[in-house]
Amino acid sequence: MPSNASVIVRAELSAGPEVLSHAMTAITMAGGEVDGMDTVRSTRETITRDIVILGADERATDAIVTSLGNVQGVTVHGVTNAIFRAHEGGMLTMRTRIPVRNRDDLSMAYTPGVARVCMAIHDNLDRAWDLTIKGNSVMVISDGSALVGQGDLGPLAALPVLEGLSLFMREKAAVDAFPLPIDLDDPAAIADTVIKIASVFGGIHVADISAPNCFEITRILRGALDIPVVHGDAEGTAAALLAGTLNGLAVVGKNIAESRICVAGPGPGAMAYRHFAEKADAAEVRGAETHEAMRDLVKGADVYVGVSYPGSLSREDVAGMNADPVVLALGMPNPELDPGDADGVAVFATGRPDMPNQINSTLAFPGIWRGLLDVRATEASDDALMAAACAIANVVVEEGALSADYVVPSVFNKRLVPAVAEAVAEASRRSGSARVTTAA
Amino acid sequence: MPSNASVIVRAELSAGPEVLSHAMTAITMAGGEVDGMDTVRSTRETITRDIVILGADERATDAIVTSLGNVQGVTVHGVTNAIFRAHEGGMLTMRTRIPVRNRDDLSMAYTPGVARVCMAIHDNLDRAWDLTIKGNSVMVISDGSALVGQGDLGPLAALPVLEGLSLFMREKAAVDAFPLPIDLDDPAAIADTVIKIASVFGGIHVADISAPNCFEITRILRGALDIPVVHGDAEGTAAALLAGTLNGLAVVGKNIAESRICVAGPGPGAMAYRHFAEKADAAEVRGAETHEAMRDLVKGADVYVGVSYPGSLSREDVAGMNADPVVLALGMPNPELDPGDADGVAVFATGRPDMPNQINSTLAFPGIWRGLLDVRATEASDDALMAAACAIANVVVEEGALSADYVVPSVFNKRLVPAVAEAVAEASRRSGSARVTTAA
Repeated sequence: MPSNASVIVRAELSAGPEVLSHAMTAITMAGGEVDGMDTVRSTRETITRDIVILGADERATDAIVTSLGNVQGVTVHGVTNAIFRAHEGGMLTMRTRIPVRNRDDLSMAYTPGVARVCMAIHDNLDRAWDLTIKGNSVMVISDGSALVGQGDLGPLAALPVLEGLSLFMREKAAVDAFPLPIDLDDPAAIADTVIKIASVFGGIHVADISAPNCFEITRILRGALDIPVVHGDAEGTAAALLAGTLNGLAVVGKNIAESRICVAGPGPGAMAYRHFAEKADAAEVRGAETHEAMRDLVKGADVYVGVSYPGSLSREDVAGMNADPVVLALGMPNPELDPGDADGVAVFATGRPDMPNQINSTLAFPGIWRGLLDVRATEASDDALMAAACAIANVVVEEGALSADYVVPSVFNKRLVPAVAEAVAEASRRSGSARVTTAA
Repeated sequence: MPSNASVIVRAELSAGPEVLSHAMTAITMAGGEVDGMDTVRSTRETITRDIVILGADERATDAIVTSLGNVQGVTVHGVTNAIFRAHEGGMLTMRTRIPVRNRDDLSMAYTPGVARVCMAIHDNLDRAWDLTIKGNSVMVISDGSALVGQGDLGPLAALPVLEGLSLFMREKAAVDAFPLPIDLDDPAAIADTVIKIASVFGGIHVADISAPNCFEITRILRGALDIPVVHGDAEGTAAALLAGTLNGLAVVGKNIAESRICVAGPGPGAMAYRHFAEKADAAEVRGAETHEAMRDLVKGADVYVGVSYPGSLSREDVAGMNADPVVLALGMPNPELDPGDADGVAVFATGRPDMPNQINSTLAFPGIWRGLLDVRATEASDDALMAAACAIANVVVEEGALSADYVVPSVFNKRLVPAVAEAVAEASRRSGSARVTTAA
């Protein structure tokens, strides 16, 4: 992931080709790579440039910048991290869907014309789906208590993650998602707050809330609201894992109905996956919430699914599995099974972007939301979520490209979101949770 | 306001020029005006057209459509109201501020890169102003209890109004406003809910909540939050009214410090205006919350300001005012003083768009928000709001165009929002409520 450690260095260089050449050499010798360069200003004596430098990690880029600063004729004025630059000012903005060029436009959009629209909704609340932003809006909530591997950082620190999720939903699925950190700890209070502000939304996406609060919040919201509530870390991850399971087993010529699955981990993803695997008629689903239980249950398993701790699955554990083991190890930042110990594994998938078969919830939730909103679903039914998993798997199958190194599509695969959305919409219609019952 | 009553009629007409000509005649004879026409489809026998028809009001357009349907060779297939068409699907959408073209982009916007941004905010909460959407986001709230002259319609029916306000803030002032109806009645509970979800916002705009709840909610929010809370119906209306007062008095050669002002009405606009007029050193500010009190207090007044009931100010009342009376009568849908009775008035302003001197809160709040956000204000200080009023008035003065029929600028005046924003930012800096203390 070079860009995570990429920096933009503003440096003033004495004029002439020699200093620039020395600067480039210093960067390269220190292990860096120049990814781009802009001239900020130029005088007779010096040229000030913004140099984008890639390093292996943060420490490496620090060392590269130090080396650059030591070159004679170079003065470093500032270093900006590319990540911080990307987040500057936030990642989302609003736009208007109709123009307000003159008083006539304003009189339709706002007073006095708007009064008729308000009355129409007052008379029939369902009209809000047609006459407001509700039909395409999703609230993305968190209390910041389980932030992408960082623990409890609080609601405001969760905002960049919620913006990232919203950005991804907008870019991939044209969903208008709004990030809403909630400054509360108690699950009932969080759910109650969400319920009171839910009317403008067509769905709720729950993210990065610690267990068991996340389950309690989701349960209360589902009981109280007539719009879908998707628990991203649970159902999103589980749908992606089920897709990997189905295709992984297909690669080794097995069927899920004849397969034993060991699921390691106490968190939302593992819990939801166990539920899905059972609904998918797996021969046996063995949940292990401790390391000891896992070591026991993985013996004789066809599939290992881990949403737990780096390095917790050993070469010996794999050796005790059935023939052609499928290992889906989502531990972060490193998988449960060290890639160097994976030579006995038939299909190996992880959460890492620099290895084949990256599995995470981003494969699932944009398409899930597109499908749920398209039919104005009352809930995210098990059937709809399972259909999402099958659709993810099918994208690879339909390409005729299924192999041990390609069991799930890329999140950038253009067929992914439409395929998942269509499957989710169709399953919602079949299961009776769609307000819109005719296909588009 | 023709477009409030405009309809789009889908009609199938027998081919040939004669039927179209008869159709146009029927529309015109029935009092309608054809504002546009599109061909939907055409066969050998018929042409289907969407005809945009303007009528005087809703009843008139109904009659026009009936006349059109009676023309031989014309079949009306459907009638769509233009207002409903404008609100179809809502008036706002989200956009992303950075691209997500590939895995590198995603790793900066979302995991793993985002974790560093989260940590930076966790370590210093102020960084959320730089690294998230907070700095340009305003929450627009209502419980729907006092909806633009429609009374209590409930939170969901308030959504189109909140969308309209948000749309206007975005179009006029590039503010990212998000509409959030709140499904609660109790003012303390409403305020508490808003506080718990406020972290992503740089300000709160309170709209269309009935008195006295609106005051209580605003008071609690201001005590609890370190971001501005603007009560649109109060301060927005009052700032516009103060601008009208200052320029109205200038037209008749009076000064506010020597003027007696009678303020009629029990609501937020009247209350806030009284406060502003006192701060502006008016010689006497006389608040009248009942009709009887007003009739007494308007005697000898230089200015009448009404945010009360249509027709409540009589020709006789005006006759009892001081010479060259200024009357700002915002009663809706019609002013307190019938325009036909206004011949003794020197400067007459109303809330009506079809008369000179339209005064309402839309003159003030887009610029107020732009200014408050530009300096990351901790509050909307009285000084900032008074500065907004002066800036609105000055737009007209600086054009050298001040006259009895032009005391406030149009909301579409391109100088309005920048002038108000700059004045609000400067006043916030002076009064110590600006986080950003250097001018842009």
